[in-house]
Amino acid sequence: MLEGQPRVREGGGDVTFVNRFTTHAPDDEFERVFAEVCEFMARQAGFLGNTLLKHAEDEHSYINIARWRDIECFHKALAHPEFEPHVARLRTLSTSEPHLYRPRLVVSAGRGEQR
Amino acid sequence: MLEGQPRVREGGGDVTFVNRFTTHAPDDEFERVFAEVCEFMARQAGFLGNTLLKHAEDEHSYINIARWRDIECFHKALAHPEFEPHVARLRTLSTSEPHLYRPRLVVSAGRGEQR
Repeated sequence: MLEGQPRVREGGGDVTFVNRFTTHAPDDEFERVFAEVCEFMARQAGFLGNTLLKHAEDEHSYINIARWRDIECFHKALAHPEFEPHVARLRTLSTSEPHLYRPRLVVSAGRGEQR
Repeated sequence: MLEGQPRVREGGGDVTFVNRFTTHAPDDEFERVFAEVCEFMARQAGFLGNTLLKHAEDEHSYINIARWRDIECFHKALAHPEFEPHVARLRTLSTSEPHLYRPRLVVSAGRGEQR
């Protein structure tokens, strides 16, 4: 697909963990606890990056998008003994709907300008 | 939150459009049509990047994450006369669940190593 387009790539070993949260706590409290979870995750091997987004219209809805080098690193981070207390705190503030994905098509900004 | 951590930032004018797709067509057909939509989107002003991901376990589930400079650019792209035919083709292959988000917390890889 889209062969010869260097800024588009298929596949790769990295995984993306997408988690939708419905909060029942104030935003600042949820975001403060979430930032602590990010602090922990960012110290784990294979962490590539993380973005917490808030729904533009639904005030109780967030989505988190976390990228990991591979599935093994991701599972290792989840199995870390310090992880469970973080998650337990998040559970007191929200419910979540987690899903794991693999990249199929990545398009970077600037492709249009290349043409 | 996390003040003094240069690789973590809050807010910003950019928006992220997250769209979950349930497909009823072969992967290669859906991905080919999706790539054409990306080609169009990447030519529009304010396009920052796009990632199509496939669910690791559910073979009929994809999620697309598209970043735009601001909500105005995003709406302008959707209103472009060339956009509707692309979307119409996607609709013959899948159903979708679109949501618009704003960034709240962004953590880049490497923060852990900085400590």
